[in-house]
Amino acid sequence: MTTTELRTDPITGRTVAVDLGACQRRDDFDLEPVRLEDAPAQCPLSEGREAEAGPEILAWREGGPANAPGWSVRVVPNRHAMLRIEGQLDVGPNGLFDGRDGLGAHEVIVETPIHDQPLHTLDVDRVWRVFWAWRTRMRDLERDSRFVSLVAFKNHGRAAGARLDHSHSQLTAFPLVPPALAEKLRGAAQYLSIQGRCVYCDVIAEELKDGRRVISDQASILAIAPYASRVPFETCLMPRSHSARFEDASDATLHILATTFKAVMARIDWALERPAYNLVLHTAPLSGEADAAFHWHLEILPRVTRYSGLEWGTGVHRNPVSPEDAARALRT
Amino acid sequence: MTTTELRTDPITGRTVAVDLGACQRRDDFDLEPVRLEDAPAQCPLSEGREAEAGPEILAWREGGPANAPGWSVRVVPNRHAMLRIEGQLDVGPNGLFDGRDGLGAHEVIVETPIHDQPLHTLDVDRVWRVFWAWRTRMRDLERDSRFVSLVAFKNHGRAAGARLDHSHSQLTAFPLVPPALAEKLRGAAQYLSIQGRCVYCDVIAEELKDGRRVISDQASILAIAPYASRVPFETCLMPRSHSARFEDASDATLHILATTFKAVMARIDWALERPAYNLVLHTAPLSGEADAAFHWHLEILPRVTRYSGLEWGTGVHRNPVSPEDAARALRT
Repeated sequence: MTTTELRTDPITGRTVAVDLGACQRRDDFDLEPVRLEDAPAQCPLSEGREAEAGPEILAWREGGPANAPGWSVRVVPNRHAMLRIEGQLDVGPNGLFDGRDGLGAHEVIVETPIHDQPLHTLDVDRVWRVFWAWRTRMRDLERDSRFVSLVAFKNHGRAAGARLDHSHSQLTAFPLVPPALAEKLRGAAQYLSIQGRCVYCDVIAEELKDGRRVISDQASILAIAPYASRVPFETCLMPRSHSARFEDASDATLHILATTFKAVMARIDWALERPAYNLVLHTAPLSGEADAAFHWHLEILPRVTRYSGLEWGTGVHRNPVSPEDAARALRT
Repeated sequence: MTTTELRTDPITGRTVAVDLGACQRRDDFDLEPVRLEDAPAQCPLSEGREAEAGPEILAWREGGPANAPGWSVRVVPNRHAMLRIEGQLDVGPNGLFDGRDGLGAHEVIVETPIHDQPLHTLDVDRVWRVFWAWRTRMRDLERDSRFVSLVAFKNHGRAAGARLDHSHSQLTAFPLVPPALAEKLRGAAQYLSIQGRCVYCDVIAEELKDGRRVISDQASILAIAPYASRVPFETCLMPRSHSARFEDASDATLHILATTFKAVMARIDWALERPAYNLVLHTAPLSGEADAAFHWHLEILPRVTRYSGLEWGTGVHRNPVSPEDAARALRT
């Protein structure tokens, strides 16, 4: 019989229900290997169709003019942007129904010119270029004083919400701190005020001492299965030393991040049969106020379980694989 | 071009990104009509296989012995329970890593003896019996002083997280207030402390005055498309007059709830081609402290969009259909 433990996330305080012991429900996983469905000839993100993807904001090119072939990473505006540069920042209150323009930025990072190359299968140097593109765009967006925080994310596979097969990620700049980041910042600020230290740094120290949830600790970027992992094989990549902002990471750090990401994803592909996954990059807000409390990190969220009525109704995620078991399977 | 509005939920304060104007992305909906996949002969919830489903805690029977055929609704323990009656309530603190037994209750309400009858296609009286079973079990679980709050939910279709096709819902009793309910309670308590009124009652008054998001207002149970709807065609059913607890609802009220639920679901089936959906029932915690602030409600969440990196990373749901358009389509 499976025993379930209610675990409290040390940063957010949120409860996760983790099944301990041998996984009974593996047969129930949505092991839906990511298949390519879009016809390459119709893909707006492939090399040679630059006009369709939109005017480039940034590209890594070996030469040649902008908006033409010859690039390896390319950043364009999102054609279905949720947030746009045009818009009013302030809107008056409207009683209970408060709405405002979706002011901000919403960019697409096209991670490869080739239609059928998932990010984690690119070689390290090319993964690095994607992180370089995130960092370059974030440094630029930071200069717009209307923006409060930046979040990058990626959907790989339909089950993870991807609408195009061609490998890409998204960068958003918000005029507010979005709830999922705000929840972490609140917890981190509270911990700092009581303990005087970064909660992520303390979690890292405890995890390294305990060892059971450490996936990789050979470099300056650690890979850990979080204590209150929400989904099977959730992995958090973060710098071993305190660093609030991804934008401040050096080229060398991003190379190690790329290497670690690829190594973990190779094991996840093996363990979960090339699952759909999401990536989330959280970095401190632009104001700098959270720089002592917060610690940037990249989350890998394989999508082999479904968001169900339990998650909607209680906010408690149920994870059928303990992070201890996941880390054991992912350690290389 | 779609314009997106960032809307703040009047109760939780959470941001939702709602696309206004004609829906551009309808082709992108996961319109995956719910199909039956389980073989009826293997279904553990069908009539005649009562021993497999487990010993009944409650049943609506026309006669006959317990745990035998002759029922129309049957409540059994969840075979993959997340929360169990056995367990320790108190656990000592353990530094950053706080875990405790999954103490509580986790029951399954089998909504029909027939394998292929979705809840919303049952006749009104039989839907009523399901709500009666929820209420009866909730009244019983309330007497266990270890429990703090109750949440009922339902997964219809694989895309909504259902693991069995046979129509069923789940009832959970928690030793804590789970995050999704806590978020609403915090907002409602704050509103009460400032305005002196129930925020749900005020939202109802404003919605009836505005009219654009009202789906049905002909009875004591209203159906409204919430201002900050998280998914297309999200619908909230709630009593017009203040009532904190579903457990206190009369038989007559539950009949009206059943009628309204069926009417809304018929329109959702028409509009979204029989989508997967979740139901969530939120009722005030057992302590009674929130009875002035909170107002019970039943949420219908059609699942035609995916939970993506945007939702994981920002906590902001993107809804491609405005609630005003949804209400117009669902009004009968």
